[in-house]
Amino acid sequence: MHFEVEQKHRVDDPGELVTQLTERGVIVGPPIVQADRYFAHPARDYAQTDEALRIRTVGEASFVTYKGPKLDTTTKTRRELELPLAETDADGSQFAELLAALGFKPVATVRKTRREFRIAHDGRDIHGALDTVDGVGTFVELELSADDASLEAARRVIATSADQLELGPSERRSYLEMLLAK
Amino acid sequence: MHFEVEQKHRVDDPGELVTQLTERGVIVGPPIVQADRYFAHPARDYAQTDEALRIRTVGEASFVTYKGPKLDTTTKTRRELELPLAETDADGSQFAELLAALGFKPVATVRKTRREFRIAHDGRDIHGALDTVDGVGTFVELELSADDASLEAARRVIATSADQLELGPSERRSYLEMLLAK
Repeated sequence: MHFEVEQKHRVDDPGELVTQLTERGVIVGPPIVQADRYFAHPARDYAQTDEALRIRTVGEASFVTYKGPKLDTTTKTRRELELPLAETDADGSQFAELLAALGFKPVATVRKTRREFRIAHDGRDIHGALDTVDGVGTFVELELSADDASLEAARRVIATSADQLELGPSERRSYLEMLLAK
Repeated sequence: MHFEVEQKHRVDDPGELVTQLTERGVIVGPPIVQADRYFAHPARDYAQTDEALRIRTVGEASFVTYKGPKLDTTTKTRRELELPLAETDADGSQFAELLAALGFKPVATVRKTRREFRIAHDGRDIHGALDTVDGVGTFVELELSADDASLEAARRVIATSADQLELGPSERRSYLEMLLAK
């Protein structure tokens, strides 16, 4: 089975973290603005079922993403479907209109500026993202793909890397949950 | 307000109709295969609400179409949303998988071979389609766009044209309804 091991930490001083990463030879990518519009299902309470449906718009392209419930409590493994929308629907507005016609209701929009990076660690390539989320704050996400055999090792690699970057306690809530909890 | 005036008639001898149209100078287009996959809503009975959601695949392209309830009983006017799917989803299979994840269930697939034509009539351009529908039969559809002022005239033009082609009684049911009624 395929897992995504993911940890998220609040960052108090993003400039300091970027400096620290750069000094370690990590290239921190340019800021990319992402807008994620989340929708409520007409018959299921996605907050209860732990599902999510969103339209993500990045520059001149939009994607629709469905996330299934987390499959266990320790890792954030879940089914994920992502489809690009047609080029004629670059801002996702036509798809949003379709969702409305099908009875889906807009919940909230998570807007963030993301800078991506990679950290080589014990031969593994950790995917990192430094996210400044409107109304929520700045966070760093560390992520590694794993299978059954490598799951425990992946967890250790992520934890060690978070320690080395002197990150504080991890945050389990999604950006949408944090935004709605305000 | 914008209307689509539409009439559909069963055709017993398609070859005879094509000959008749050709003799009147009408160019009947090449056969195009269309497959329409219809889906049931997770919480609404579309047969009751008179809505429809389908993925249409024509050659190397797919579209998703939502049809709202008919707005009155005499004409078949309804809200219609149609979006092309991304080129990476030419057969619509990714979108079908997304619909399944959202709780939509496949109902039936209407497969037909369509030949399109236009009939000039009293300065109007009637859109015609000769459809051979798998498991349902062969039908001809005649359609004209109209607004409030031209609605009655459009109905007359369609009716006169159907008379001239010696078409039998009109069929009000959709191909999906006829397929499901079998």
